[in-house]
Amino acid sequence: MTSAAADLAAVADVGLLDPAWAGSRAEAATADRTFLGHLLDVEAAWVRVLARHGLATEAEAAAAAAAGDPDAYDLAALARAAQGGGTPPLIPALKALRAQLPAGSRAVHLGATSQDVVDSALMVMVGRVGAILAEDLAAAQDALAELARAHRSTPMVARSLAQHSLPSTFGLRAANWLDGLGQAADRLAAAVADLPVQWGGAAGTLASLSGHVDRAHRAGTLGPEVTAFTLVEDLAAELGLAAPAGPWDTNRMAVTGVAAALADVVAACGKIANDVLTSARIENGELGEPLAAGRGGSSAMPHKQNPVLSVLIRSAALSAPGLAARVYTAAGAADDERPDGAWHAEWPALRRLLRVAGGTAALTRELVSGLRVHEDRMRRNLELTGPLLVSERIMAELAPELDEASGEPGSGKRLIQDVVDRSLACEGNFRALLRAAVPESVPDARLDDLLDPAAYTGEAEALVDRLLAARRGTTTPPRT
Amino acid sequence: MTSAAADLAAVADVGLLDPAWAGSRAEAATADRTFLGHLLDVEAAWVRVLARHGLATEAEAAAAAAAGDPDAYDLAALARAAQGGGTPPLIPALKALRAQLPAGSRAVHLGATSQDVVDSALMVMVGRVGAILAEDLAAAQDALAELARAHRSTPMVARSLAQHSLPSTFGLRAANWLDGLGQAADRLAAAVADLPVQWGGAAGTLASLSGHVDRAHRAGTLGPEVTAFTLVEDLAAELGLAAPAGPWDTNRMAVTGVAAALADVVAACGKIANDVLTSARIENGELGEPLAAGRGGSSAMPHKQNPVLSVLIRSAALSAPGLAARVYTAAGAADDERPDGAWHAEWPALRRLLRVAGGTAALTRELVSGLRVHEDRMRRNLELTGPLLVSERIMAELAPELDEASGEPGSGKRLIQDVVDRSLACEGNFRALLRAAVPESVPDARLDDLLDPAAYTGEAEALVDRLLAARRGTTTPPRT
Amino acid sequence: MTSAAADLAAVADVGLLDPAWAGSRAEAATADRTFLGHLLDVEAAWVRVLARHGLATEAEAAAAAAAGDPDAYDLAALARAAQGGGTPPLIPALKALRAQLPAGSRAVHLGATSQDVVDSALMVMVGRVGAILAEDLAAAQDALAELARAHRSTPMVARSLAQHSLPSTFGLRAANWLDGLGQAADRLAAAVADLPVQWGGAAGTLASLSGHVDRAHRAGTLGPEVTAFTLVEDLAAELGLAAPAGPWDTNRMAVTGVAAALADVVAACGKIANDVLTSARIENGELGEPLAAGRGGSSAMPHKQNPVLSVLIRSAALSAPGLAARVYTAAGAADDERPDGAWHAEWPALRRLLRVAGGTAALTRELVSGLRVHEDRMRRNLELTGPLLVSERIMAELAPELDEASGEPGSGKRLIQDVVDRSLACEGNFRALLRAAVPESVPDARLDDLLDPAAYTGEAEALVDRLLAARRGTTTPPRT
Amino acid sequence: MTSAAADLAAVADVGLLDPAWAGSRAEAATADRTFLGHLLDVEAAWVRVLARHGLATEAEAAAAAAAGDPDAYDLAALARAAQGGGTPPLIPALKALRAQLPAGSRAVHLGATSQDVVDSALMVMVGRVGAILAEDLAAAQDALAELARAHRSTPMVARSLAQHSLPSTFGLRAANWLDGLGQAADRLAAAVADLPVQWGGAAGTLASLSGHVDRAHRAGTLGPEVTAFTLVEDLAAELGLAAPAGPWDTNRMAVTGVAAALADVVAACGKIANDVLTSARIENGELGEPLAAGRGGSSAMPHKQNPVLSVLIRSAALSAPGLAARVYTAAGAADDERPDGAWHAEWPALRRLLRVAGGTAALTRELVSGLRVHEDRMRRNLELTGPLLVSERIMAELAPELDEASGEPGSGKRLIQDVVDRSLACEGNFRALLRAAVPESVPDARLDDLLDPAAYTGEAEALVDRLLAARRGTTTPPRT
Repeated sequence: MTSAAADLAAVADVGLLDPAWAGSRAEAATADRTFLGHLLDVEAAWVRVLARHGLATEAEAAAAAAAGDPDAYDLAALARAAQGGGTPPLIPALKALRAQLPAGSRAVHLGATSQDVVDSALMVMVGRVGAILAEDLAAAQDALAELARAHRSTPMVARSLAQHSLPSTFGLRAANWLDGLGQAADRLAAAVADLPVQWGGAAGTLASLSGHVDRAHRAGTLGPEVTAFTLVEDLAAELGLAAPAGPWDTNRMAVTGVAAALADVVAACGKIANDVLTSARIENGELGEPLAAGRGGSSAMPHKQNPVLSVLIRSAALSAPGLAARVYTAAGAADDERPDGAWHAEWPALRRLLRVAGGTAALTRELVSGLRVHEDRMRRNLELTGPLLVSERIMAELAPELDEASGEPGSGKRLIQDVVDRSLACEGNFRALLRAAVPESVPDARLDDLLDPAAYTGEAEALVDRLLAARRGTTTPPRT
Repeated sequence: MTSAAADLAAVADVGLLDPAWAGSRAEAATADRTFLGHLLDVEAAWVRVLARHGLATEAEAAAAAAAGDPDAYDLAALARAAQGGGTPPLIPALKALRAQLPAGSRAVHLGATSQDVVDSALMVMVGRVGAILAEDLAAAQDALAELARAHRSTPMVARSLAQHSLPSTFGLRAANWLDGLGQAADRLAAAVADLPVQWGGAAGTLASLSGHVDRAHRAGTLGPEVTAFTLVEDLAAELGLAAPAGPWDTNRMAVTGVAAALADVVAACGKIANDVLTSARIENGELGEPLAAGRGGSSAMPHKQNPVLSVLIRSAALSAPGLAARVYTAAGAADDERPDGAWHAEWPALRRLLRVAGGTAALTRELVSGLRVHEDRMRRNLELTGPLLVSERIMAELAPELDEASGEPGSGKRLIQDVVDRSLACEGNFRALLRAAVPESVPDARLDDLLDPAAYTGEAEALVDRLLAARRGTTTPPRT
Repeated sequence: MTSAAADLAAVADVGLLDPAWAGSRAEAATADRTFLGHLLDVEAAWVRVLARHGLATEAEAAAAAAAGDPDAYDLAALARAAQGGGTPPLIPALKALRAQLPAGSRAVHLGATSQDVVDSALMVMVGRVGAILAEDLAAAQDALAELARAHRSTPMVARSLAQHSLPSTFGLRAANWLDGLGQAADRLAAAVADLPVQWGGAAGTLASLSGHVDRAHRAGTLGPEVTAFTLVEDLAAELGLAAPAGPWDTNRMAVTGVAAALADVVAACGKIANDVLTSARIENGELGEPLAAGRGGSSAMPHKQNPVLSVLIRSAALSAPGLAARVYTAAGAADDERPDGAWHAEWPALRRLLRVAGGTAALTRELVSGLRVHEDRMRRNLELTGPLLVSERIMAELAPELDEASGEPGSGKRLIQDVVDRSLACEGNFRALLRAAVPESVPDARLDDLLDPAAYTGEAEALVDRLLAARRGTTTPPRT
Repeated sequence: MTSAAADLAAVADVGLLDPAWAGSRAEAATADRTFLGHLLDVEAAWVRVLARHGLATEAEAAAAAAAGDPDAYDLAALARAAQGGGTPPLIPALKALRAQLPAGSRAVHLGATSQDVVDSALMVMVGRVGAILAEDLAAAQDALAELARAHRSTPMVARSLAQHSLPSTFGLRAANWLDGLGQAADRLAAAVADLPVQWGGAAGTLASLSGHVDRAHRAGTLGPEVTAFTLVEDLAAELGLAAPAGPWDTNRMAVTGVAAALADVVAACGKIANDVLTSARIENGELGEPLAAGRGGSSAMPHKQNPVLSVLIRSAALSAPGLAARVYTAAGAADDERPDGAWHAEWPALRRLLRVAGGTAALTRELVSGLRVHEDRMRRNLELTGPLLVSERIMAELAPELDEASGEPGSGKRLIQDVVDRSLACEGNFRALLRAAVPESVPDARLDDLLDPAAYTGEAEALVDRLLAARRGTTTPPRT
């Protein structure tokens, strides 16, 4: 190992305490080396733009491009040097970069300030992670749509405040998961659709660049139609970013928008994981995580199959809101034309949020793509509360008839309530008590139908259809 | 005072520790009584919908409407009773409401569950506060646009990391404030544009309602074209809400979206307040809060004019992110078909965020509408760093000429750097040192122009125009 | 209703959206009227101290005391007026208070500033809520100790990552709850033990008070042994607070310490509630909340007994950390000699945290005092995983013996692992497979003992004893 | 570079976006490699303890110790493999570790579970960082005490709500900084004083270990006085940790206590940084950061000396509360005998908080050790508000005399107020107006004294002495 590599290894984090995203594509897309690469790319793209308009030479553009390999730099040394400037390591990186350019070249970083390059590189990074997320979220939505369709009519008890409430179907639960995840994915797509380039110079006035442009206009080496804004637009295009009306050094709405959407994604995934964790308990048993080699086994306890994916997603759901809050705190603490600390609090929180969300989306995709659904356990749990689950229905259907039969308004309700109370007091089986209490004019078959939980799922199936239809077009069509 | 009023007074909060929103329209729009009113409105609207389709009588609808005065209820008693159900006081309120209806009437709350009414009432409340906010934010944007136009060319130093960086204009700072506030206002408008009604019954399946509809279909008292979904759509229309594809008991994206937008609004206001606080310091003096009777005076210290509006806005900017994070934490902790605690953590945080944002927007409107701009102090502060502020420009303009004059590339840069260094070492006045170092071919007038900070504001004026143009249409046109 | 009372009612919060603390003693102890009472008490105590040393008249002290009834003030009007000063309503309250004193009297508020009175009143309020909390937490600890003792040996499965891990006892779980709650209670007791009075005047230098004392010294009306610090010490004693070395306007460690301890209390309660929520699910059924009239019933669903206490406690556990974080954010944003917004962000968060913690402690006391323990369900759930739960023990006990018997090291482990694998593959009952695999030299009785989960609870009972002993002295002794 | 090193480099973070702690001792003390080292140390210490009691061989202990070099493992591969188990990489590390031990050896990890080793290693890590922090905080306190003593009487204006309030001294500000930092350091010292070892086995019952001990007792190879608890105590002693009454898998009070204390440290440092940032503005100029090569320079703007240390500390103060809140959220979300996600959310937040606090303490030490104090600017700023600053004193001293002279109570106050008002209205110089209004019986010299701000600092000097005395003993004595 070289000395630099050894130094690196001594302080490097590789995700040892972050199983929620270690090894994910989002980790690689936000690693220090990757970010340094984006910084260098922004610088090189800028020289390319300048060269296109005759403000730099092709040789300079080529040299800047050639200097763009992050592996050529000593990452750990750069990170340490960065503290001197209080910003990410642009100043030392520029020094190293310029050393690789023709002597006296001023094209690199011309008219720019550190924040321009760092913010633009952050936006590039957000865009890359956004694309990875979009892919994982689309696949997760496909799998959820599949589950919703497949289990559109699979009876399952719905629960509120941790208690059985009424019958429903597992398809509806899956469709609700899809609804949440789909909305979150849409928001993220909107938030990363027009990520803005940042380019304003030391004071956000483009003063230095504007001066260069003026001199080139006066010298006749640049056409009058090319302004500082033209150059910024070209840069944005080079980087796949949008060109905003002006720099946004202290207006962090682009960043808070991304943070909020990432937090939405994690929250939507968290809901799914919470449900799987409850359902994977042996006492419940309705769902199981996908079985995969190396996942969830316990060395000491052979009977254990840990719901590892859900555990990690849940940990992310407990973490993401605080990270998003930090981004907002930073935005609201901004001041002057570049903030004195608030900006610095933002990037680490944003990057971590990108990783948490990226890891979570990948884990959720894996979770819902192989989710094991145990219909028998759903049915068995439904029967735990038994016919009481449908007492609401019995009351609504039979009470009026009983009133009419007896000619005494309110008597039906009293009679059924009495059956319910005696059943709760374990004085007998609900069906038997009900049969005894209800006149023979109500036939057994009708009673059985009324008592069948699976027959009292209301609009569950129609809701599955509606929720699937609502998301159509935003996900890929079902595999046929 | 009646006994109930006395009880109320003993535990009531009226904003004593919340000067940031005490007395604001948002406070009134989110008060307990107001919210109780919304709960009752939702119930009454539902009976109205049922009556329209023959599922309730007009007498019931009239009675439900008549029972909708929140003052007829003992608020404090309701709040206490609510704990028994673990939800806002719907169950006790329903009991009180039903006592005012025809005996045996089942129309009120038919097929609904507490969460339906509470969530729908919350959405109504969000909509009301959203409208108040929109008004205050539009007025604030108008005032900011005015400031940007009026001070488009007013020289002011830009600052980064709390230090002078380069010259700019106050108009650009105001335009940047506008840019942030405008984007936040747009997001809020989008977030409250389609607030969804919540209606799903005990399990989110509409089972009970669906049963009623079926019986009515079978009885021929309801046309087959009217489904449970039709009724929900009608309810949404009654309440000014949107009808979503399905209930969203555990998919809180509508709520997180609002929370994020409110946090955006507060952050954008916070940026403005931070700047005013710095500028209102006597050592800086560039800005002053509007003078208003009863605002900012100090009993003990006659010389003090406290920047009270900014102080309160800043306190809001420190508070809002945590409130938004709580809403997200709750969303990600949701489980089952109704969460067992997560939902309960959401409403208080959301309501508080509505107040904080509502108070902040009103304070910001007042702040920017009467902001006092001290151009003389801006000019004086600009001169504190003096010609060094423009050394970047001097370097860019003169170094190439000096190179050319001497025929020695790099000599110009060295010469000017030497002047800068000597000036920083206080060996003399920068202009004098520069004059002595630069050949006579550069005339005094050119030197003076190059040294004038107000002449080195780059694209500041163009940026003001661009930022104003970008917001045109989203704010009301300038008063002419 | 008077007009003021009507105004009050229109904006007053009485806990409608806060069932977690509505109606609690903490609510009353932190209500606006209570806090106003503390403000007035601080002012009156100060005049009392001055009078004791001849710096005010007894008539002034009596008048200040007489003016201390918060009901004599228009709360809502005070709250609104407070915004003018950017602080809680001290300035308008002082004006009202002074109107009730002898004309020209300067004793009230002599040498003080608003922050002195507000911070001191906050500390008094914290002390009161701290005492209420201590009482509820002590009672909760008593109940937990009782549960731990009573169920020291009640078999129950322990769970990790939501899966069965090994047998344990419910007493150990209760003892662990006690351990957490006890530590949190100890921290809170320490945090409220020496709450400091705040008294420093407008700049934290005691300048004005010091001037009065000097003049009195010079006039001979005050003994030289009485200094400004003596007076502050007397004030602290009057209010039951400690006298610190100096004012702490911008050093908020006293406040963050309280906030952290409150968050600890809520976290410890949250752990209990989470477990009850899982255990109260019908599929698990090991625990039930206390049955109480008006608690947890569902109007629509007679079979439902909602675990309302745990739901509300869990909602608190999701809320408290963010409130504590706000207090810390405010502390770290303090500046100058009185913060320009950070201080204002602190009180509302602190008060809310007091309420959340106060409500939570009361709910937890109720929860654990009447918790229903279903030993049969614990036993039944333990048997769900069956003998596999003790396979670790079988392996440890029998493998060496089998090795020895066969003379082949490692063969025992292989043999037992094979039994486990076949059992997991449902090839047969674990006991039968084991019996067939293990030589007759291992008698049936030994096998039965090894397979009994209740016999493999390790040190669970000893741990109960140790944890109870560790808390002895900090809770009241067990009722005998 | 080896392939493993290349893989590592591709995803490794080395602090590029974290200038607040990149290169700090806390970074090295919390790096992945360091933590892996602690994991291996815990395992080796346990085998050592077992060997001491004859439960393992010396060869096993030696082999475990020899396997303790973290560099022998492929960090990145471990981190990736960790996801399978949902915990830090103990399972893969154990596999690698066991491969280096005598075949068939069961001593490593005997009776332990992953959480035992991870939590114990975390506590070791906290202890190490705690020691580093203690050192930096002690040095910072020494420097602050020095500043307080040296500037005990240096006049400076005190500010409240960003406005001038009254005269004070810089020594008092420094003493207040010291007071906050000292209290925070004391809390941290208390929080890390008795960090507990974690050792409970898979269910927190010590079942497996207890079985081994029983068998050894029965076999006569272990004395009856040695219990499972004895072994855990020995392990604690080996690791420099405390042995608690029982395991604390789900009682995270030890962790929340550390998190709160770390947040206190950062908040106390934040207060200092906020003040330096304001004071280092060119308009204020009262303080300057230490000058150091490579710190704070700006490539583009030669006149800029960025207050980089304070910027980074401020960014930390905006970040730490959210990290602490995550630790609390995790604690309150714990359930069962090992949490299903909450535990996993805790470590990354805690580690990050250790880094943020560690970096902040080091930066603060550097900041206050070389802080440049500009007494002339303090004096000049004090004069900006001028004699109005002492109008409170004039009023208190002269009004009674004027009353007496005129024989008309209240006339003195009116007269002085009139002078103040005319001065504020710029009708003349305050001193001149006052001289003209006050009878000759008040001599010029007295008037000058009364008007001298530096003579109206109240008890500032006494407070410096008191605050220094209060911290004596907790910091090292002043250098003499």
